[in-house]
Amino acid sequence: MTQTPTIEFWHEFASTYSYPAAMRVERAARARGVEVLWRPFLLGPIFKAQGFSTSPFVVNELKGANMWRDVARICARDGLRFKRPAIFPQNSLLAARVELCLPQDQRGAFARAAYALEYGEGADISGREAVEALLRRNGRDADALLARAGGEEIKAALREAGERAAAHGIFGSPSFVTQDGELFWGNDRLDAALDWACGVRWGLEA
Amino acid sequence: MTQTPTIEFWHEFASTYSYPAAMRVERAARARGVEVLWRPFLLGPIFKAQGFSTSPFVVNELKGANMWRDVARICARDGLRFKRPAIFPQNSLLAARVELCLPQDQRGAFARAAYALEYGEGADISGREAVEALLRRNGRDADALLARAGGEEIKAALREAGERAAAHGIFGSPSFVTQDGELFWGNDRLDAALDWACGVRWGLEA
Repeated sequence: MTQTPTIEFWHEFASTYSYPAAMRVERAARARGVEVLWRPFLLGPIFKAQGFSTSPFVVNELKGANMWRDVARICARDGLRFKRPAIFPQNSLLAARVELCLPQDQRGAFARAAYALEYGEGADISGREAVEALLRRNGRDADALLARAGGEEIKAALREAGERAAAHGIFGSPSFVTQDGELFWGNDRLDAALDWACGVRWGLEA
Repeated sequence: MTQTPTIEFWHEFASTYSYPAAMRVERAARARGVEVLWRPFLLGPIFKAQGFSTSPFVVNELKGANMWRDVARICARDGLRFKRPAIFPQNSLLAARVELCLPQDQRGAFARAAYALEYGEGADISGREAVEALLRRNGRDADALLARAGGEEIKAALREAGERAAAHGIFGSPSFVTQDGELFWGNDRLDAALDWACGVRWGLEA
């Protein structure tokens, strides 16, 4: 028996392009026989370590303006609702911690619901109330999850996730990492990452 | 008779992703019945106006490292030779001026040859000798073209091109602009730009 290939889906809840990526990654991976490992992380510490204080879409106004239009086009093409939130980038700490509390097979549903609320409805997902409502709507024990999300174990797990992201060379979201450590950055690199996970190399020397 | 749709292909010779874009834009556009208008320009003045001194791939080392690997993968996939040049970004002033001297139907051949030399062979194309050799290899009157490229008319035309790029909101290369002014940034947005040029809107309100 051959092992099922896996792909790590590194996603930051503040990231716009991670919304269409999160909505399609599992479907696209399943069609290729690839399993998705959901990896929430925070970009803030990575930006800070690079000497940047915020998102490149805030630093570069022209790039930011293009990004909002581009994301609207991509969502329209993918049949996704899109509404630009009043706040960008949002504080994604609580959502990332809560996702880390969940087992792998429940992370996708939570992440999709969170991104859909943030960028499909244009809501602020940084607060406890928003995350609590998300969890209740998905039939989860919100009180227990939020208590655990605030504990030392999950804080340490999120720090460790950030260190692993940095070790992979990740600098943006979404990022895809294959089992042999190949890094692909951006929603538009999902297909190439799945190709790589399936052993396609396009004649490139590894 | 309906008018042939056109797309403006804005390209900076220092840009890596503009290499695979230049090599396929005409073929991809022809397959959709779209005409390509070649628009050489310089990113330097746009970066400077934004307060940046060089390429984002130099400013952000992690992004730069990923870009080189990603471009190598894309070239392998597209069947293009790829060799990382020792110098990046290269001074693209002369190549841009020379392309501006050529009529539209001769620009593609020159641009493809220049990009192939720079990123397929890893050569430095900033100097007069390299551009002269490119022109001679393409059977052009190198002396006459280089003389004209150094004149006031072409200097003014390149400045004007930069102003038009800025007016389109262009901040990177390659960029595609449709007849109704829709801006698409990046080699990976060529198909979407051609869709738009052909009237596809994905249900998006214009």
